[in-house]
Amino acid sequence: MGSQDVKLVGFWVSPFVKRVEWALKLKGVNYEYVEEDIFNKTPLLLELNPVHKKVPVLVHAQKPIAESFIILEYIDETWKQSPLLPQHPYERALARFWADFAEQKLLNAAWIAMCNSGEEQEKALKVAREAIEKIEEEIKGKKFFGGDNIGYLDLALGWISYWLPVFEEVGSMQIIDPLKCSAITAWMTNFLNQPVINDSLPPRDKMLVYFQSRREAFHGLFKI
Amino acid sequence: MGSQDVKLVGFWVSPFVKRVEWALKLKGVNYEYVEEDIFNKTPLLLELNPVHKKVPVLVHAQKPIAESFIILEYIDETWKQSPLLPQHPYERALARFWADFAEQKLLNAAWIAMCNSGEEQEKALKVAREAIEKIEEEIKGKKFFGGDNIGYLDLALGWISYWLPVFEEVGSMQIIDPLKCSAITAWMTNFLNQPVINDSLPPRDKMLVYFQSRREAFHGLFKI
Repeated sequence: MGSQDVKLVGFWVSPFVKRVEWALKLKGVNYEYVEEDIFNKTPLLLELNPVHKKVPVLVHAQKPIAESFIILEYIDETWKQSPLLPQHPYERALARFWADFAEQKLLNAAWIAMCNSGEEQEKALKVAREAIEKIEEEIKGKKFFGGDNIGYLDLALGWISYWLPVFEEVGSMQIIDPLKCSAITAWMTNFLNQPVINDSLPPRDKMLVYFQSRREAFHGLFKI
Repeated sequence: MGSQDVKLVGFWVSPFVKRVEWALKLKGVNYEYVEEDIFNKTPLLLELNPVHKKVPVLVHAQKPIAESFIILEYIDETWKQSPLLPQHPYERALARFWADFAEQKLLNAAWIAMCNSGEEQEKALKVAREAIEKIEEEIKGKKFFGGDNIGYLDLALGWISYWLPVFEEVGSMQIIDPLKCSAITAWMTNFLNQPVINDSLPPRDKMLVYFQSRREAFHGLFKI
């Protein structure tokens, strides 16, 4: 398939975009990447995702699809090679459940913790730490959430391996306690060691500058 | 299949539970319904859904599945008769997109509007009205979101037909403007006229009492 059939509109540091890129790479789907300026949104983005006006947007056969988890399902249903979701409906339900859980509880709380100080930060940290301990239980005894290979849930939680430590550094806080989260810590290493993942990470020094600016812009604005 | 294989833990007035019941009925799956006391949660619920502690929980072959949209996907993948989601990946993505959109934007805003007065209610109403107008565009020219038959998106949005007018009455507010939302209004009638839907609705007078008590309990607590 020519890459003109598949276009991904993204933003370099977005973990939501990155999980879609990882899925396309794992499937071996060629695509054209279009960098969006999320601070000065282009007519292209507003046309492709008029409802949410957010990246990522996947365009396949001239049709736009938004929302990263929905895009992952679309990719898995459209290109059958290297399945992302498990085959059994119950296992599929579990993968979707934990993906949603991490998004609602861990990502949201980690972001709020990073953008706060003092008591508000502590409240968000408590939620984030409880969430990561639940995820720790799910990965125990497995190399990947998907089993021996990276699957849907690994991609959904992939940001934990690389973005979360940046959030911790920017917020001068600890969410992943290596003593309580030894299985997560091992998974982070396994995940980041995969060439598909490792080859497409944004530079950490640029990420630190970017999220420091987000912390300053949003300081105290969001609460848990 | 014996109904002992499938159990649904619910709460009589929950629209999240009702969409799962509708799916089971549409598929012709026998199930045992277990009413939960959400104000005094039972050990059964805490065991079946220890993470969120919420209904609905579907138990199939002794395995619990939580979160209503995830349960709908599970039901559709497990019992193939009367498919809920469309067949084509792009149409499936659209159904999931609008289901998520209505949950995030319309249901959340309508609830907040119902639980507030004055300026905070007006802010939430603006969000809810913008959301319903977007949904209006999606149903125009169709009997059901699923086409000629009820599908996933009809079940996901089904609460609009019966719960939303109750929210409007309790909050003394209007979200569905019949002049702007003639297609939604026609869909509401079509949807409620289906025997599977019509036979299993909670009594409206009891709903009014229940949601009035929720408005009083949460008044001013949530903001958009």
